[in-house]
Amino acid sequence: MPTLILAESSLEIVPKELQNHASVTSYCKKNGKSPSDVLLDNSWHFAAMKGIKNEIKRGRPDIVHLTLLSVCNTPLYNANKLKVYVHTINDEIISISDNIRLPKSYHRFQGLIEKLFKNYKIKVDNTTLLELYNMTFEELLTKIQPSEILGLSTKGDQSTFQDTARAITKDTCIVIGGFQKGHFSEKILKTFDNLKSVNINSLEAHVVASRILYEYEKTIFI
Amino acid sequence: MPTLILAESSLEIVPKELQNHASVTSYCKKNGKSPSDVLLDNSWHFAAMKGIKNEIKRGRPDIVHLTLLSVCNTPLYNANKLKVYVHTINDEIISISDNIRLPKSYHRFQGLIEKLFKNYKIKVDNTTLLELYNMTFEELLTKIQPSEILGLSTKGDQSTFQDTARAITKDTCIVIGGFQKGHFSEKILKTFDNLKSVNINSLEAHVVASRILYEYEKTIFI
Repeated sequence: MPTLILAESSLEIVPKELQNHASVTSYCKKNGKSPSDVLLDNSWHFAAMKGIKNEIKRGRPDIVHLTLLSVCNTPLYNANKLKVYVHTINDEIISISDNIRLPKSYHRFQGLIEKLFKNYKIKVDNTTLLELYNMTFEELLTKIQPSEILGLSTKGDQSTFQDTARAITKDTCIVIGGFQKGHFSEKILKTFDNLKSVNINSLEAHVVASRILYEYEKTIFI
Repeated sequence: MPTLILAESSLEIVPKELQNHASVTSYCKKNGKSPSDVLLDNSWHFAAMKGIKNEIKRGRPDIVHLTLLSVCNTPLYNANKLKVYVHTINDEIISISDNIRLPKSYHRFQGLIEKLFKNYKIKVDNTTLLELYNMTFEELLTKIQPSEILGLSTKGDQSTFQDTARAITKDTCIVIGGFQKGHFSEKILKTFDNLKSVNINSLEAHVVASRILYEYEKTIFI
């Protein structure tokens, strides 16, 4: 089956050097959490994040949440016809199991991912739902061995969702950026066999994911 | 332009009879909010909600958030080619202005909607972004005067997103349920000129909205 990777996603635990910042400690105190366990979130930790390295690709766990909800509630995913990974800005990989029912509620999703960063695995009844690895994007590709790596970006060749989806096979790896602004880094870009722009203007990750998977679904379902 | 209504949406302030329930008061204490101002949310107020009237259509503000994000980040909406309303289970109407940038972060969305329920209007620089009315679904239809009212439900005539979208005109009112389980009430159902089922199995509101708007977009954009 094809693979979807949300790449360079803005998902991480508050880094050590920001854990003593007032916006982090006050947030943690209010929510009974430890700064070393909490997701970096620019809607709460904006003051702490000002000027940090690679700022525009960090602290947006909501993008991952929203995109995974768009992906994991499609008939395609529900029919076990898509494998999903999240690659983070810090070169971690989250493997999403088949048939997962992700929490719709953000605070529950946050709790789940914080637990994942702590324990590296989320298991229910001996089934692993989520697993976290320290792994680069390139290492993940070596593991998947796709026949084609297809990146979606406004920097790509102009196409449409429909035409792009028609070229997807069961060995294609589709890559969407899991960040708010900016573009894929050179390291990611150079792995692509194809780079397609599916819309003239930039679209949010969840919109891109919804549309490309829907068009692919139409090519394989009657 | 066509209209999208998210109907019977599970969005409301905690009703008076639940405001003294421990799960509500402890939540409010922790978050520095008043029980009379806070959104009913079954992920926090589950214990209070057990057995209340119409339980399956209540306390899911995340459904409205997620669906509005799916709708208000489409090229269609951004090109001012769609008018959007939320109708709530308590017969209130929220009018969404053009060009709104809704908060991605759930806690900010929650704060905004709580403010809307208190003040009936959200204005920025003399522009009204959101407006709340006490108004029934039928009254809203009288105001809009659509040429066709199209409901989407698994109870409808079997069709596809593509075929259904091809019949949408600029005077169509598209209606999607803004609730987790169950079906439209009889009161809503009887207003429809057409009722279509766009997927064999039930789909979440945000998936239905994403797909039908995308297919409609394809009929009007080059």
